[in-house]
Amino acid sequence: MGIHQKFVEKAEKLVPDLHKTIVWPQSVIEVVVDEEAFQGWRTQPAGAVTDKLAQSFGKGESFILDFGDHQVGYVSLTIKSEGSPQDAPLGLKLIFGEMPCEVAELFDSYEGWLSKSWLQEETVYIDVLPAVLKLPRRYCFRYLKVEVIDTSRKYTVSFADIRCTAVTSADVSKVKPLPAELPEDLAAIDRISIKTLQDCMQTVFEDGPKRDRRLWIGDLRLQALANYYTFGHYDLVKRCLYLFGGMTLEDGTVGACVFEKPHPIVDDTRLYDYALFFVATLYDYYETSKDREALVELWPVALEQIRIGLSRLDASGLVRDDDTWWCFTDWHPKLNKQASAQAVLLYSLTRGHALAEVLGEEQEAAFIADQMNRVRRASLTHLWDSEKNFFVSGPDKQISWASQVWMVLAGVLNETENAQLMDRLFEQPPEIGMTTPYMHHHLIEALFESGRTEKAVEQMRAYWGEMVKDGADCFWEIYNPNDKKLSPYGSNLINSYCHAWSCTPTYFIRKYLLPGEAAKEDDGRSA
Amino acid sequence: MGIHQKFVEKAEKLVPDLHKTIVWPQSVIEVVVDEEAFQGWRTQPAGAVTDKLAQSFGKGESFILDFGDHQVGYVSLTIKSEGSPQDAPLGLKLIFGEMPCEVAELFDSYEGWLSKSWLQEETVYIDVLPAVLKLPRRYCFRYLKVEVIDTSRKYTVSFADIRCTAVTSADVSKVKPLPAELPEDLAAIDRISIKTLQDCMQTVFEDGPKRDRRLWIGDLRLQALANYYTFGHYDLVKRCLYLFGGMTLEDGTVGACVFEKPHPIVDDTRLYDYALFFVATLYDYYETSKDREALVELWPVALEQIRIGLSRLDASGLVRDDDTWWCFTDWHPKLNKQASAQAVLLYSLTRGHALAEVLGEEQEAAFIADQMNRVRRASLTHLWDSEKNFFVSGPDKQISWASQVWMVLAGVLNETENAQLMDRLFEQPPEIGMTTPYMHHHLIEALFESGRTEKAVEQMRAYWGEMVKDGADCFWEIYNPNDKKLSPYGSNLINSYCHAWSCTPTYFIRKYLLPGEAAKEDDGRSA
Repeated sequence: MGIHQKFVEKAEKLVPDLHKTIVWPQSVIEVVVDEEAFQGWRTQPAGAVTDKLAQSFGKGESFILDFGDHQVGYVSLTIKSEGSPQDAPLGLKLIFGEMPCEVAELFDSYEGWLSKSWLQEETVYIDVLPAVLKLPRRYCFRYLKVEVIDTSRKYTVSFADIRCTAVTSADVSKVKPLPAELPEDLAAIDRISIKTLQDCMQTVFEDGPKRDRRLWIGDLRLQALANYYTFGHYDLVKRCLYLFGGMTLEDGTVGACVFEKPHPIVDDTRLYDYALFFVATLYDYYETSKDREALVELWPVALEQIRIGLSRLDASGLVRDDDTWWCFTDWHPKLNKQASAQAVLLYSLTRGHALAEVLGEEQEAAFIADQMNRVRRASLTHLWDSEKNFFVSGPDKQISWASQVWMVLAGVLNETENAQLMDRLFEQPPEIGMTTPYMHHHLIEALFESGRTEKAVEQMRAYWGEMVKDGADCFWEIYNPNDKKLSPYGSNLINSYCHAWSCTPTYFIRKYLLPGEAAKEDDGRSA
Repeated sequence: MGIHQKFVEKAEKLVPDLHKTIVWPQSVIEVVVDEEAFQGWRTQPAGAVTDKLAQSFGKGESFILDFGDHQVGYVSLTIKSEGSPQDAPLGLKLIFGEMPCEVAELFDSYEGWLSKSWLQEETVYIDVLPAVLKLPRRYCFRYLKVEVIDTSRKYTVSFADIRCTAVTSADVSKVKPLPAELPEDLAAIDRISIKTLQDCMQTVFEDGPKRDRRLWIGDLRLQALANYYTFGHYDLVKRCLYLFGGMTLEDGTVGACVFEKPHPIVDDTRLYDYALFFVATLYDYYETSKDREALVELWPVALEQIRIGLSRLDASGLVRDDDTWWCFTDWHPKLNKQASAQAVLLYSLTRGHALAEVLGEEQEAAFIADQMNRVRRASLTHLWDSEKNFFVSGPDKQISWASQVWMVLAGVLNETENAQLMDRLFEQPPEIGMTTPYMHHHLIEALFESGRTEKAVEQMRAYWGEMVKDGADCFWEIYNPNDKKLSPYGSNLINSYCHAWSCTPTYFIRKYLLPGEAAKEDDGRSA
């Protein structure tokens, strides 16, 4: 690893204070099988919290509390014994769920390939009651299942003051209210987007506060965009840029993710597109903050990503393809990533060029401009299929949604051609679709940027609006309206249900749909 | 409850400091099925600790450490991650076992009627490594099974400095060495008795440091006797007497047990014999310590136990029988307890009478003397079967070992008759036998007190000596040489394998077998 200690120290000085809010459970629920409901589980009321806390519980008894909304925080419970003096330890199991499936299905049934340790449960034995059980770990949940493993024949237990101290580095008072005339469904999408971003904003922009809980640059780029239009927490973006810039892989590549604890460290995951997004994220940050000092300091890191990205080009100016997990783009087992990687390179070159010009680095700007032409030319020559009127990718000339969307965002074609390509995508939809909110973000962005506002809103409603209908408190890591039990990990239980890369509808709504904010108008050809 | 606050405060001022010793694991073992071994499990070496700690472990991997001897204390482990940065929590299961069965059989299989929460296991999830895991609870174990629930595909974990801080209020330097000529097997029995007592001596005399972990007066009486001949910790006996004297049941009865935490409290368990043992325990304490101040203060409590005990006599001077768990005597489902209760009453009256005389309470002494005659007369008239030459008990005139042993200890017959009765017991053994070390203690005591030293030693060897052969590190709560899987609780897993009432062989050896200590000589008729 290359460590630029000054950058890491600068990042560490920017660790934000967390805002704390005490949240109490709102109701008692039970989870029942319902084939019509999302993932086949429906919650239904099962009484008032005060009534449940007035009861006492023995071996094998349990209840589920609903905290009313998604929470990220620390939980404590007051526990008392009832009956004879406590003559055996209390055994207690606590299960935290973002979604009903987590408090309904047995964690023991989990057979997915991600670590079982992500499942949020605690087994505690308490020797002396009464006690205030303050759990030291942070949980991410709306539902808390409390299950008494055992008391003894001589005593039972009751609970009081079950609370969550919710934490975030987002200042919710900074979010501007939406105009009243915005349709209600879009207002709901906006609210849930902001809650998603809020719950992911901790001492870095986490990808998911339940699972992974770390800073990925692919997520950071989208979170930063949503943040500029809502909480405006520039220093948190700055901290994250300095973390990535301060700790690169051996050859200087920006890592795909970094960990904060026990000390800042870059993961050994390398992704072609993610490294290049350092350039794009720095560009977006500078454009909004005008923080020239950070730009000057971090520009060499950005430039290095450009050089490393370019080093993958073959003689014809094409990004070399690969069978490994070398480029992310989307969770899709069959997706070929050559075209999208080519487009991400061009997208990043364009932003790098703008930054070089801001800095007055004329030689670098000229170098990048040359490379932009080379990459664009190679894309048009080798990846544009003029018979099918789509971009193709890889040795099998695969046509996918992802390749078209990224080529549009990269601006390989002109504005009119881009808009036509986006229209064609819906008229002749390729078989290789999109699976993540992350990829759907890029679809919507490409539509807005091509002047297809109505289509963009329609697609946002079809995807995030459908999540709302399916009961989302925050937006999810994985969602396929046509396959609602989809998990890339082999189990719904391990999916993250508050996930950074799903938070951008608020950015679209506030950037493209609010009066005075919108930069572009629909050209009227869409829908 | 009656609370004599001054007594409780006096007890609380006598909370002893605990001696701490750091203990490290001695070896790595595995547990294998062996029908010849105690409970069907045998341990065998599986390598050196240093080699095991040099390895790293992933999902589902485990090892078992052997700390070389029974420990009561607090455990900590240093844990490091190896491989890529820790990208998921570490899930860890720790299982503590006094005996091989506990680390070999699955706790999930436990179906006994005592609380499952007594089984010593912890499931912990650790978000950030390296970490020093300091478990806050006290464990009682020789074996520690460490099992990795999950890491992730990208990292494993290694362990270092796994240690136990063992605690006891016993000062081991106070124990006098045995003369070298004592047979080796008796020396081993003495050593293990002392270790049992030591591990039960905490801030009170606990009955079992693994399970129950509280002060029972039946155990206290025996622990105090062993303590006088070994650690000589008088203040700990005094603390326990003041706890029992300071907190009685509503009618003034001394409770069967008390809890220390969260504040001293007497349990609602009432046992006829146990309440009377307050008198006997106070007598033994005064006889050894000559602490007249404590005797003066606690005498009214003792006298009240005598009055309450006497109030159960019917017109004929017999203790009224009962089908409930009103008197302990022994764990035996068929044992009738009338005769043993009658004997315990007389045994306690005798000691109460001696204390009244020490105090110069002549009226009380005279009253007790009258009652002793009444109880003895009724025992001889109604419970002695002169055809069978045994004491009988209850409506079915049951003949048991327990009834004879207790009648001997109570001194209903004269010394010669007592010795003959003890001989007869072995010549014509009654069907209703003995199940606990607690009852075996009274058998051995009755033999010694009847001058049957050889038989006493033979029986001690047959019971405690057999436990040694079966691998005891401490002496057990339950032991039947003819039924080695016996548990009164429905599972071996929940038995206590370091149990106070099993600690008295050191008392017998040091009181009756050492030159200059022995008060009585064998009359030569036994064996």
